Amino acid sequence: MAPRKTVGILGGGQLGRMLAHPAALLGIPLLILDSGDYTPAKQVLVAAPPSTHPDGPFTSESHIRELARQCDVLTVEIEHVNADVLERVEKEGLCEVQPAPKTIRLIQDKYLQKAYLSERGIPVAPFEKLPENPTEQDVKALTDRLGLPVMLKARTLAYDGRGNSPLKTAEAQDIQKSLDFLGDRPLYAEGWAPFVKEVAVMVVRNKEGEVRSYDAVETFHRDSILRVCLAPLRASGKGMDGVNQRARELAERAVSTLEGAGIFGVEMFLMEDGSLLLNEIAPRPHNSGHHTIEACHTSQFENHLRAISSLPLGSTSLQVPSAAMINILGVDNSMDPVLAMADSAFAVPGARAHLYGKVESRKARKMGHITLTANSDAELRKHLRTILLAQPDADASWVDPVAPPPVEVSHSHPQPLVGIIMGSDSDLPVMLPAARILDKFDIPYELTITSAHRTPERMVTYARSAVSRGLRVIIAGAGGAAHLPGMVASETALPVVGVPVKASVLDGVDSLYSIVQMPRGIPVATSGINNSTNAALLAIRILGTSIPRLTVEMEAYAKSLEEEVLQKADILEKEGWEKYAADRLKK
Amino acid sequence: MAPRKTVGILGGGQLGRMLAHPAALLGIPLLILDSGDYTPAKQVLVAAPPSTHPDGPFTSESHIRELARQCDVLTVEIEHVNADVLERVEKEGLCEVQPAPKTIRLIQDKYLQKAYLSERGIPVAPFEKLPENPTEQDVKALTDRLGLPVMLKARTLAYDGRGNSPLKTAEAQDIQKSLDFLGDRPLYAEGWAPFVKEVAVMVVRNKEGEVRSYDAVETFHRDSILRVCLAPLRASGKGMDGVNQRARELAERAVSTLEGAGIFGVEMFLMEDGSLLLNEIAPRPHNSGHHTIEACHTSQFENHLRAISSLPLGSTSLQVPSAAMINILGVDNSMDPVLAMADSAFAVPGARAHLYGKVESRKARKMGHITLTANSDAELRKHLRTILLAQPDADASWVDPVAPPPVEVSHSHPQPLVGIIMGSDSDLPVMLPAARILDKFDIPYELTITSAHRTPERMVTYARSAVSRGLRVIIAGAGGAAHLPGMVASETALPVVGVPVKASVLDGVDSLYSIVQMPRGIPVATSGINNSTNAALLAIRILGTSIPRLTVEMEAYAKSLEEEVLQKADILEKEGWEKYAADRLKK
Repeated sequence: MAPRKTVGILGGGQLGRMLAHPAALLGIPLLILDSGDYTPAKQVLVAAPPSTHPDGPFTSESHIRELARQCDVLTVEIEHVNADVLERVEKEGLCEVQPAPKTIRLIQDKYLQKAYLSERGIPVAPFEKLPENPTEQDVKALTDRLGLPVMLKARTLAYDGRGNSPLKTAEAQDIQKSLDFLGDRPLYAEGWAPFVKEVAVMVVRNKEGEVRSYDAVETFHRDSILRVCLAPLRASGKGMDGVNQRARELAERAVSTLEGAGIFGVEMFLMEDGSLLLNEIAPRPHNSGHHTIEACHTSQFENHLRAISSLPLGSTSLQVPSAAMINILGVDNSMDPVLAMADSAFAVPGARAHLYGKVESRKARKMGHITLTANSDAELRKHLRTILLAQPDADASWVDPVAPPPVEVSHSHPQPLVGIIMGSDSDLPVMLPAARILDKFDIPYELTITSAHRTPERMVTYARSAVSRGLRVIIAGAGGAAHLPGMVASETALPVVGVPVKASVLDGVDSLYSIVQMPRGIPVATSGINNSTNAALLAIRILGTSIPRLTVEMEAYAKSLEEEVLQKADILEKEGWEKYAADRLKK
Repeated sequence: MAPRKTVGILGGGQLGRMLAHPAALLGIPLLILDSGDYTPAKQVLVAAPPSTHPDGPFTSESHIRELARQCDVLTVEIEHVNADVLERVEKEGLCEVQPAPKTIRLIQDKYLQKAYLSERGIPVAPFEKLPENPTEQDVKALTDRLGLPVMLKARTLAYDGRGNSPLKTAEAQDIQKSLDFLGDRPLYAEGWAPFVKEVAVMVVRNKEGEVRSYDAVETFHRDSILRVCLAPLRASGKGMDGVNQRARELAERAVSTLEGAGIFGVEMFLMEDGSLLLNEIAPRPHNSGHHTIEACHTSQFENHLRAISSLPLGSTSLQVPSAAMINILGVDNSMDPVLAMADSAFAVPGARAHLYGKVESRKARKMGHITLTANSDAELRKHLRTILLAQPDADASWVDPVAPPPVEVSHSHPQPLVGIIMGSDSDLPVMLPAARILDKFDIPYELTITSAHRTPERMVTYARSAVSRGLRVIIAGAGGAAHLPGMVASETALPVVGVPVKASVLDGVDSLYSIVQMPRGIPVATSGINNSTNAALLAIRILGTSIPRLTVEMEAYAKSLEEEVLQKADILEKEGWEKYAADRLKK
């Protein structure tokens, strides 16, 4: 039996609340330091008698000491704490602190954090510190080195964009405006990172230094506040293969340089060429990992508790194909719009509301979130759109890029499960029935032309990025010396269905042999000559192994085929076969 | 915005605790009536000030009235409540009660419950009531009508087998022993139902009478106490196709006959011929639905709250392929073995411990449970075995049937994902490489012989039960007029991979054409002639769409093939091709 350490948390907001739930499940005694008896965290975990949650500010040394005396290990739900007090508490042997106070202190100063990571070989955007009380000249000189635009940032006490000021010109007026906005905090500057996506990875680290990362997510911000996360990260195009794995490795490497145990949120920029720059690290559970409660084997909150309590780390695997998190932000002082946003989850399969129990709402305050899980990216985005459109500030400019509107007929879906490709537009008449079958079963797909012989590079990029784009099956049609299906199968681990297209000679037997007689090691699932209908039906049977409704619908489809033949037999027997044959000719 | 009704629960045990969590998330004010301030449910939900949870027995009328005055709707976490008081509370307009008190009263008397359901056409085992203070003669007469063995049951206040006494003979001594065991409670008897599995279905019903069922589960009891649930229900053999759907329909039909809203647990017997008998209904969240917290879109607890609060019902779909629930029962008065059982979840991917916060342990008391989710039945059972073997009373006699030990090489796995079949044992040499590839990738599979022409009935039963047994791909090899792959594809919605086996004439082209040229509507994924290696690799690519590790391993496999060829090229270039060709001949 693993002994349970009593854990104390500085801060009783939503992160403390989400830590309190697994603590109750695991039998970990937990005490929460915050002002008031009905904070979000204290609402959902009564202290085991005779203990009580300390009532006081988590910044107060005396209260921290009161908490520490009752606990085996202290942790934080916010990094803006007094690291000196924590260090003293630990040094005096009063209580262990995780993550290490020096890590918290390092992370509190974004400039020192960046310098530390950069010195350890972690790629970051170019950055430079500004002197105390910087002048216009100081900033101007810096823009000469870092270029424009540049981001001026407060080194400390900055979150949700409150300490960032982008500077687009080096004109005196603009510089002064930025400096005024940022006030008299210590500042630093970052060169512009023209990223294509913002990415985050949660990493848990135990005291022995073992690190485990979760799948990378794409994050979407609005007015510098996180609004939506999508898991796992998807990216398409050259240089993007394996991006999820590379993001995880970079995050693990960064967290490995830090001291102490616990969960860390690592924010990164994904650049156009597929490279990654680390933005910043949070030494605590993070908003970009909330989906892990429902979507992963072990949530970020449970893994944080395990890590700081010296219990074995849990599996970070996603247990669903796709997940999303949508923040519920306060609109004004009323709880009504907050509840209305939570209610938008009721009608959506796979959506769960998490209200944080905050008694007062304020504009832009994090009041809750919704987690969404789905069988596929396409289903996820469809359901996500319903939820986003219920947000009071929903408009097409930010909703459509995250959760696109339905596609038009005869156009590729942006989150396809099936890719239909063919070597030449002359194959289109043979391949169209596949598209129509997929439409009938409401499967998201894309259709395009790529040739093994005429566009080899395009074919390779297509096949190599197929997995990271979320495709599950590729249907490839080709005629004659039909190389496309086999070559695509050589460049992807997805199942490839080959359709032999009958060319001008040999009745399609050339195409059939070229596709079916693959060497041992690289399989192609070959359909009958010109039979793209069956290729699509096979793709649906394959998808049915991960999307149960399709297996049920395929059974119904087989039944409909049976009934169709039985009806024909009935008419043939009733009307006589001579008349039937004559009628059939007329059709 | 949907208004939130204040909910009151009679009882503050583990079911109340698991209701309290979604109540907090949905912003539903919840008050718990039970004795003490630190019951499992009260630990995890502080009443919103100025309310407090009433402190008193949930059987006390004055306390129920105190609760009702503060609530909009009352519900129960146990059916052994005073239905008369609830009825009065509702009639006086003090508070709504869900489910309806008359439903609770009906269910409290197992004989009346059975009679009610039976009158409404729900199939149940034969049953008969016993007179008050039954004599040996009464029981003997009854065994003449219901046969032996027979189950004598207390009509009321019976749970976890505490009111059941099986009677194997009609001898005076045995009858008296049973009557003594059951005491002076009102009794009834049930004819023996020689079931092959015990099955349960959770059904939620709203006030408008809409019902939604969860997937059926198989339940395993020991000493009449539920120990393990497996979801979804699997069953093999004739008559078993569609058993999950039939169990859900029966459960929905039974719950539709009852009044009131809420979640219901419906226990059933699955008979050898695939038919189902209803055993009993619980008008509340049920132990056989605990896995729904992690495994389904909306848990039984959230759906209960939604149903009784007039909020829309949530999706009952499983979000994972396989799930299990393992109860943690007290061993004695010590918490140590309880924590040790919970700890067995730490090392198992997809396992989550749920301790109920009970301060005292007792033998056979429900102290917690573990939920397990997995990509496949095979993975689930493997992990389940680890957890079951950590139970203090683990022994092969009950662990092996639930979670079998690893299979021997060259023997079929009991929870296969792939079925390898062939028309004749003469095909075995061609099909063996497929088995070896599946072994290499650690895929559970079965291998057997079934012929389209010589064992058509066996083939049909095999194909039709494939989905309900949890198979995801079938690999079928056949030669000559090779009908097996196509005929199997006609009887299942799973993807079927066909391997054309080269027979004595025509070099296998006859087999290839017979397999690949399927009519539109029924696809077979055809591999190269005699190339069962590729058939297996294709099956793995297909499984990779639902088991992510396989896609990663398939990419590594392709890389290893590439390296193998590069090495050969290197040797060929270094040693010269004449020597290489000579060396190759010697191998």
